[in-house]
Amino acid sequence: MNPFKTITIQQSVFANNDKQADELRKDLKNDQVFLLNLMASPGAGKTTTLTQTINRLKDQLKIGVMEADIDSDVDAQTISQTGVKVIQLHTGGMCHLDADMTRQGLKELYTKGLDLVILENVGNLVCPAEFDTGSVKNAMILSVPEGDDKPLKYPLMFTICDVLLINKIDVMNVFDFSLEKVKERALKLNPNIQIIPISARTGEGIEEFAQWLKQETLKWKD
Amino acid sequence: MNPFKTITIQQSVFANNDKQADELRKDLKNDQVFLLNLMASPGAGKTTTLTQTINRLKDQLKIGVMEADIDSDVDAQTISQTGVKVIQLHTGGMCHLDADMTRQGLKELYTKGLDLVILENVGNLVCPAEFDTGSVKNAMILSVPEGDDKPLKYPLMFTICDVLLINKIDVMNVFDFSLEKVKERALKLNPNIQIIPISARTGEGIEEFAQWLKQETLKWKD
Repeated sequence: MNPFKTITIQQSVFANNDKQADELRKDLKNDQVFLLNLMASPGAGKTTTLTQTINRLKDQLKIGVMEADIDSDVDAQTISQTGVKVIQLHTGGMCHLDADMTRQGLKELYTKGLDLVILENVGNLVCPAEFDTGSVKNAMILSVPEGDDKPLKYPLMFTICDVLLINKIDVMNVFDFSLEKVKERALKLNPNIQIIPISARTGEGIEEFAQWLKQETLKWKD
Repeated sequence: MNPFKTITIQQSVFANNDKQADELRKDLKNDQVFLLNLMASPGAGKTTTLTQTINRLKDQLKIGVMEADIDSDVDAQTISQTGVKVIQLHTGGMCHLDADMTRQGLKELYTKGLDLVILENVGNLVCPAEFDTGSVKNAMILSVPEGDDKPLKYPLMFTICDVLLINKIDVMNVFDFSLEKVKERALKLNPNIQIIPISARTGEGIEEFAQWLKQETLKWKD
């Protein structure tokens, strides 16, 4: 039997998602729970990055994870091996989560006593950027094999994120990828975005991201 | 000045996309134009694959290309270097093209005299799979760095495609990717899908895809 629950999220009935998102953030503040929304293309390394990050933080913070996918539960399986609380959300074909769908997931996860909840959004650089989930902060992963032109082609995602993790830097030598160009393009869209090059495989850079996440969680609970 | 036009596609007003798609296919048949819808995640190598394929076919077929993107015209710039007719479609934030949006693009491209039109859809494994564009055939690219679990997580895309190109096989040795597993998973979803491993960078496998595309185009014009 799986050590996690799988639920199918219902489509939202609310017309005003921004209002729902603000209300969710207010409730999270009252409950002293920090919510991070993690977004990326399919295969950019969200689950591996999360596993590495959780292993560095799980003795310091009480962590819960919501894995959102169209189908399958391979990601929840992987995360459950870290020992933290995890739930698989199936979106029923939906390409993103909005605030009400996120609230449905949080209710099933049961957040009482948790410090930090991470939502791994559906693998997609387009639609998740258009819907505020109610998260306190947004992070995205761009992986080296995807190319350094992605800020030009998917500008909204880079604009709404607080942190940009550039993953798979351990294979930079086999791809035509300029870290300088991607930094320049991302900062042009979003001068406040924090950029952290990482390798989820080797662990490089993960400590810096884990420290950022811990500090933001503690600030939120202040 | 750019050697191509950039247009912004308008959202469709039609409720029944499947009907619009069937009508577009009928018109394409009458006009003797074959339309391929090419889909993939961001950064899977759609444009590089297209460039390689076009260079092998442009002396045998009259080709037009529609590059659909949220923003930027870097892909149309790249394709225009092959010398074929190209147009950049901006989707105004939309995450996919439907049949009416495709028809808008075809009208601006002006297809008279063309044998083959290729639509490079928005980089996204979710939404484009849900909307019939009116294309004669669908192809998708999965790149090695994305991982071999993608058929499990994005099953609809693998189900609706006639061809699956597995790109970036030249870097297979630096990733944990099983060609056998991905083939098995894709064929379980879609026993008729044709799977062609390629490297758009080295050109490996491109000739096989180009031959398939040429045969399908000639069959359609029969």
